[in-house]
Amino acid sequence: MDSKQNTKFPLVVIVGGGFGGVELASRLAKEPVEILLLDKHNYHSFPPLLYQVATGSLECESIAFSLRKNFEGQKNLRFRVAEVTGVNTEQNYIETTIGEIAYDYLVMATGSTTNFFGNKDIEHYAMPMKTIPEALNLRYMFLQNLEQAVIAKTKEERDPYLTFVMVGAGPTGVELAGSFAELRNHVLSKDYPELKKEDMKVYLVDFLPRVLGPMSEQASNKAKEALLGMGVEVLLNVKVQSYDGNELKFEDGRVIRTKNVVWSAGVMGIVPNGFAKENIVRGNRIKTDEINRVVGTNNVFAIGDVGAIITEATPNGYPGVAQVAIQQGKKLAENIAHLVKGEPTEPFKYKDLGSMATIGRNKAVADLGKIKLSGFIAWLIWMFIHLISLLGFRNKVVTFINWLGSYMTYNGGTRLIIRRYVREALPEVDEAVQLPKTD
Amino acid sequence: MDSKQNTKFPLVVIVGGGFGGVELASRLAKEPVEILLLDKHNYHSFPPLLYQVATGSLECESIAFSLRKNFEGQKNLRFRVAEVTGVNTEQNYIETTIGEIAYDYLVMATGSTTNFFGNKDIEHYAMPMKTIPEALNLRYMFLQNLEQAVIAKTKEERDPYLTFVMVGAGPTGVELAGSFAELRNHVLSKDYPELKKEDMKVYLVDFLPRVLGPMSEQASNKAKEALLGMGVEVLLNVKVQSYDGNELKFEDGRVIRTKNVVWSAGVMGIVPNGFAKENIVRGNRIKTDEINRVVGTNNVFAIGDVGAIITEATPNGYPGVAQVAIQQGKKLAENIAHLVKGEPTEPFKYKDLGSMATIGRNKAVADLGKIKLSGFIAWLIWMFIHLISLLGFRNKVVTFINWLGSYMTYNGGTRLIIRRYVREALPEVDEAVQLPKTD
Repeated sequence: MDSKQNTKFPLVVIVGGGFGGVELASRLAKEPVEILLLDKHNYHSFPPLLYQVATGSLECESIAFSLRKNFEGQKNLRFRVAEVTGVNTEQNYIETTIGEIAYDYLVMATGSTTNFFGNKDIEHYAMPMKTIPEALNLRYMFLQNLEQAVIAKTKEERDPYLTFVMVGAGPTGVELAGSFAELRNHVLSKDYPELKKEDMKVYLVDFLPRVLGPMSEQASNKAKEALLGMGVEVLLNVKVQSYDGNELKFEDGRVIRTKNVVWSAGVMGIVPNGFAKENIVRGNRIKTDEINRVVGTNNVFAIGDVGAIITEATPNGYPGVAQVAIQQGKKLAENIAHLVKGEPTEPFKYKDLGSMATIGRNKAVADLGKIKLSGFIAWLIWMFIHLISLLGFRNKVVTFINWLGSYMTYNGGTRLIIRRYVREALPEVDEAVQLPKTD
Repeated sequence: MDSKQNTKFPLVVIVGGGFGGVELASRLAKEPVEILLLDKHNYHSFPPLLYQVATGSLECESIAFSLRKNFEGQKNLRFRVAEVTGVNTEQNYIETTIGEIAYDYLVMATGSTTNFFGNKDIEHYAMPMKTIPEALNLRYMFLQNLEQAVIAKTKEERDPYLTFVMVGAGPTGVELAGSFAELRNHVLSKDYPELKKEDMKVYLVDFLPRVLGPMSEQASNKAKEALLGMGVEVLLNVKVQSYDGNELKFEDGRVIRTKNVVWSAGVMGIVPNGFAKENIVRGNRIKTDEINRVVGTNNVFAIGDVGAIITEATPNGYPGVAQVAIQQGKKLAENIAHLVKGEPTEPFKYKDLGSMATIGRNKAVADLGKIKLSGFIAWLIWMFIHLISLLGFRNKVVTFINWLGSYMTYNGGTRLIIRRYVREALPEVDEAVQLPKTD
């Protein structure tokens, strides 16, 4: 493939159009480099709002933005839909679904995927929640389960369809649990007059002793209180053993009969073949130095969820959160420009701007440095920051309208089963675009 | 199944939540009947705007409205997601995916599906355009084909990915052709700087001598002019012979090499087993009398696309358009009320309110009785009427914003490939919801 258009400038191949890849690519717009941005999707998505797509209060297009449109006008960038299947760091090329591509600099920004810790049953029967197709599958599945509940003949048959378990009490689990609780408290009996809200149960479970473990104790406690107040059953210090589509079993012997299990209990980096095993660290991340350069190479980098800057201060790398990816993308752009111009580089320094999580339609918790907020104020700030962060004016407006409508009526507009969720569907159908070599 | 809740009132089972079924169900709200509304989807969709979903300027949720939400508060109506597999008019029950249901009155309002006239190749390789999943498939497929065009090595390899053929010059074909032409003229080179708009070709073909055959000659000519002006190649009086995914062959020997064929050249009624063959008329519609009652029965009815009132004046029934379905739904509601109360019924009288079709972002043609309009005025009226007709305030607002953005920038916001289109995918995945009997 003809991968280098302008032989004067070095080619930077960026794999992944998520937060890190997009920031990096944008920041290199005026630098003396050529950029080839690859992503398996033709869009960039905004994960913090995925749970709203999953519970039917936001269309998926509101949190997805066309990568081609985003980089329209950036003359030194080409975009291709492709998935990287292998990396050859000795000979400086990658293998992809659209052929081999040689690079001068390679940046892995592929992000992370759900970690099922090797448990194949859970992987098959539980629902992950990290991508748009996964959020849509969850939506279709639980709406189908509500229809099953409507026609069930006995309470014993009905209950598992109305039982929702979120495994993993991080932001995703907390936000989903809050959303399902709201569905039960405010929407269920209006849409489904045949169902009683007392029959619907929402659980949030975690191996650890706190919800929102990485946040402050205050945020953690406030979140737990709010969830309990909404009727969520919070089970901490419990470890899931197995799930067969009907019974979720815990190591302490407890069993929950449920058809709706969402697994957001672990993530792992998405790493193609070609990286030395000794350079893969905890969470399946690629070990890098302080300028995000992959150990043992001089022109391969990894940022965001898939890369881990391992130092004494950060023995497990930085957290896999959006701010880290964005800041590393920005710093790496500066450093690549330095390298190209033969200048000295600067190490990455993380500025922790805080974290937030919502619990329901008007409550949130926020750790903003020394300031810890909760309640409605935190929710307003959360909403404002997320709106601003969405790419594209149209997305902001459509999302705002959805939220307004949702806020005023408790009635999100998109509880629609557009496609039937079938567990046995060809995995490629739910997966990213892969351009077939033959028809 | 316990199908009758209130044994005092007769049970009207309505199969299909489209224009006809929804109008009928709504109009029976205050009548002394019990209603069971069935649909294979949990939403009602608005077909006139499907082509905008297909070409990526509208989210599918904007033209889909939750049936449960729509009938929230109508006390005499129950809704179930179900598909009817058979009808027993002798013993007054239907077979469905959720069991057998006995009825006092049955109304078939199942609408129509694409008619491939028995050609299995065309059915496999061409894209129909009558439902939301089909519109989404078309969107994903053509966007994937544009990505294929980007990486093609020769013009010969590239051209078929950039060639779009609409077979069937009714409103669907005309509107799609206009949309693809606009994509080529205004958007292609911005999103895909690697592609030249001269390489993209859009065809509209039909067996008949006119585009928009059922409309006036004036509308027909204006539409054709407008399409030609946008660079669409219009081939009339040509009959498609075959399509194998690469070459579209015509009976006169002509061949178009294309990967994008949309088939909107025929429809057929969706009729489950159980109706006598002699009562199925042209277009696979069920023959009825003037109160939409199926010939040979006294309590089974068919309205809209699936029913045909056969009289001397209407030897092929009324056209399969929204207004007919809505007006028949309204009249049948009155007549069912009459029947229940032992009063005389009244025959259906169609009031032709006219028809419209758009050609591009600011042109349309409209036949409104004696008045024939075209151009921007017609487009404004078209937009106004469609906005008003959308169910739900939220849908109106979101759609309006999409159109505004699209109108101001030529740049629809939803050219996103959310799921990979795979021709070999299990048909059930693209089909409507069918609740599995076993997991």
